[in-house]
Amino acid sequence: MAFQKSPGTQDILPGTVERWQFVENKAREVCRRYHFREIRTPIFEATELFQRGVGETTDIVEKEMYTFQDRGDRSLTLRPEGTAGVVRSYVENKLYGEPDPSKLYYIGPMFRYERPQAGRYRQLHQFGVEAIGSIDPALDAEVIALGYTFYTEVGLKGVRVEVNSVGTPAVRAAFREKLLQYLEPKRELLCKDCQSRMDRNPLRVLDCKTDAKYFDDAPSILDSLDEECRNHFEKVKQYLTDMNIPYAINHRLVRGLDYYTHTAFEYKAAGIGAIDTIGGGGRYNGLVADIGGPDQPGVGVGLGLERTILLLEHQQTELPNRHELDVYLVALGEAAEREVPRMLYQLRSQGLSAEKDYGGRKMKAQLKSADRMGAAYTVILGEDELSRGEVALKEMESGEQAMVPIKDLGAVINAKRNGQG
Amino acid sequence: MAFQKSPGTQDILPGTVERWQFVENKAREVCRRYHFREIRTPIFEATELFQRGVGETTDIVEKEMYTFQDRGDRSLTLRPEGTAGVVRSYVENKLYGEPDPSKLYYIGPMFRYERPQAGRYRQLHQFGVEAIGSIDPALDAEVIALGYTFYTEVGLKGVRVEVNSVGTPAVRAAFREKLLQYLEPKRELLCKDCQSRMDRNPLRVLDCKTDAKYFDDAPSILDSLDEECRNHFEKVKQYLTDMNIPYAINHRLVRGLDYYTHTAFEYKAAGIGAIDTIGGGGRYNGLVADIGGPDQPGVGVGLGLERTILLLEHQQTELPNRHELDVYLVALGEAAEREVPRMLYQLRSQGLSAEKDYGGRKMKAQLKSADRMGAAYTVILGEDELSRGEVALKEMESGEQAMVPIKDLGAVINAKRNGQG
Repeated sequence: MAFQKSPGTQDILPGTVERWQFVENKAREVCRRYHFREIRTPIFEATELFQRGVGETTDIVEKEMYTFQDRGDRSLTLRPEGTAGVVRSYVENKLYGEPDPSKLYYIGPMFRYERPQAGRYRQLHQFGVEAIGSIDPALDAEVIALGYTFYTEVGLKGVRVEVNSVGTPAVRAAFREKLLQYLEPKRELLCKDCQSRMDRNPLRVLDCKTDAKYFDDAPSILDSLDEECRNHFEKVKQYLTDMNIPYAINHRLVRGLDYYTHTAFEYKAAGIGAIDTIGGGGRYNGLVADIGGPDQPGVGVGLGLERTILLLEHQQTELPNRHELDVYLVALGEAAEREVPRMLYQLRSQGLSAEKDYGGRKMKAQLKSADRMGAAYTVILGEDELSRGEVALKEMESGEQAMVPIKDLGAVINAKRNGQG
Repeated sequence: MAFQKSPGTQDILPGTVERWQFVENKAREVCRRYHFREIRTPIFEATELFQRGVGETTDIVEKEMYTFQDRGDRSLTLRPEGTAGVVRSYVENKLYGEPDPSKLYYIGPMFRYERPQAGRYRQLHQFGVEAIGSIDPALDAEVIALGYTFYTEVGLKGVRVEVNSVGTPAVRAAFREKLLQYLEPKRELLCKDCQSRMDRNPLRVLDCKTDAKYFDDAPSILDSLDEECRNHFEKVKQYLTDMNIPYAINHRLVRGLDYYTHTAFEYKAAGIGAIDTIGGGGRYNGLVADIGGPDQPGVGVGLGLERTILLLEHQQTELPNRHELDVYLVALGEAAEREVPRMLYQLRSQGLSAEKDYGGRKMKAQLKSADRMGAAYTVILGEDELSRGEVALKEMESGEQAMVPIKDLGAVINAKRNGQG
């Protein structure tokens, strides 16, 4: 019997993994420029952290968590998202004691027990940043700009930014009453999910794709903002305009998590079929205190890498091209075969990627492998040449061939590779 | 109440994470040269895969796995090591259908419920490679060389390689009888673990640190090898010698996993206290068939990153030095503050890492932050200069200061950074 990967998980193989590497390297590079530094938190945490940090009434906590008892009878949960762990770590390691806000990023796997479908996995991967310790609206704009820069620089086309202000808890409570008055007469028209949301989190009703048609004249939370919220939102918009980030206001945008305050935003891309959300975030001024820390404000973003990569493939974005392999060594005869591991080792020590045949195959099959691997050069070791301390170096693209002393081989290829040969 | 990370897990914070990034980048760079390509397999797999692939009677499977039922009532296990998942993926994705052997590497978290102690975590991290599809002893030597190169190039000092041949299952069965005859009279002298190992896997008894003193005259498996095993081992040693990899033969070395055939090896380093194993691997010619695949041979290595990093810190190895931050922008007054996000965005778009103050602090506090962050340059925006379209650019190390037009700022700093300024 052969084993299969578990449903909703994926193997990322050579040929595909290079795109993941490219996207992740870009994320790291953008974070360097925006001066966010990496934090790595554990794959699992105490279950209660997510109940408190993500919210008891969210879909994630209610239906999607991988929760289990460990051998010491602790209830642990595979992290379903990145923010709760980072905030826990910020508090536990007392990063709030530092004079500057903590600007942190993470890249890694998250786990949600959802029905697997295109671009949706049970082990998913997110890139996110969290900036904790400042209420400066420039930081909201910076986080939004960082995500936009990331998408743009990986090559994704047609990314749009939508922003909203969801106010403070007090503003939201007042708006909630107003909204319920508006929604109540329509209750029977609405989908089941929305009827249930009306009782738990009516703001999310406005975001429903099915029922959107009923809400043309719905009240806008933006009309309910108090002065502090209005000022903050005005500055965020001003900075986005200054930076030339194209954005639209969407007063119905609330995100699936309950902890956002002031700014909430999403990235959308014209994708496969409908326009779809590919990432988002917002400000969370109450969250750090909620999970037992000091009252420090924060703002963050989380981007789904599966969707980013699916869209890049769909848009047929090409990866930066480069030679996979610098040199392939072909040995003719036993004495030559004996020499190859040593030569490989030396070429690799000189920074070159180098390969040989491991199947005792004929020259023709070996040259085919060199070709398939995209080798820039082939080196042929014949017995006669070997006894003279020489090998034949062939440039695959031009077909040019020359004899080179073995001791100079690495230097000659390196010089050619750097355009001096 | 504040939350804590779960026992045996760690937060890797800025200031420490850079060392992890350096070590991982080096692993990737060495793999590029050795022409291994990355594979990513899921964090959890069907429990049975590890029972079959790691071995029912190993400590890992018996005592240390994180096993749980998912919401669909499947028994899943957080991967305790990297080989089983890679081999499962090799079989499931039919990589054996390709003309060349699969040379794969992985870097990532593994999970073992062990008692936490210095350098030992329940979420640990490994870098490993697997080369599947060839019996060429050059591949054994190459894998050993790859690990040695990795350790050397991250800067670890005093790494030693020990190699052994554990033969084929038939060779091992014959040796097992011979060894039991030797061990039986000593049974009462041995530690409890060894008494139990005598019944389950007597070869591992010889590797026991406590009882080593009794085994000076123990039989050596190397004297029991058949011709095929002897030839293979001779070639591996020859290639290692050719490559100048310093190694020693240790005929007692068997590793904790049951699936090795022919070559087994370990890396040891004079560490904290006793000389300790920091990584190892071997050839596993039966494993692919054991987990339901075709009869393909393999060889691999797994290196513990926690131990590598602990030793690097212990040896006080310095990280390559570089400026964390290119520019820190200091704004004086409201009009200047308003300009900063736009300027930051532009500098970052030009490839520079750039930062500002997010706390509305005075100039002195901002300059302190610039200093603490290791900024190479500070830019000061005063209201008067701003109205003339200029800013003051200060090089932190030399203290040199000059007025620069705002529109040229990125280009000027980039030119200085590249040594043309």
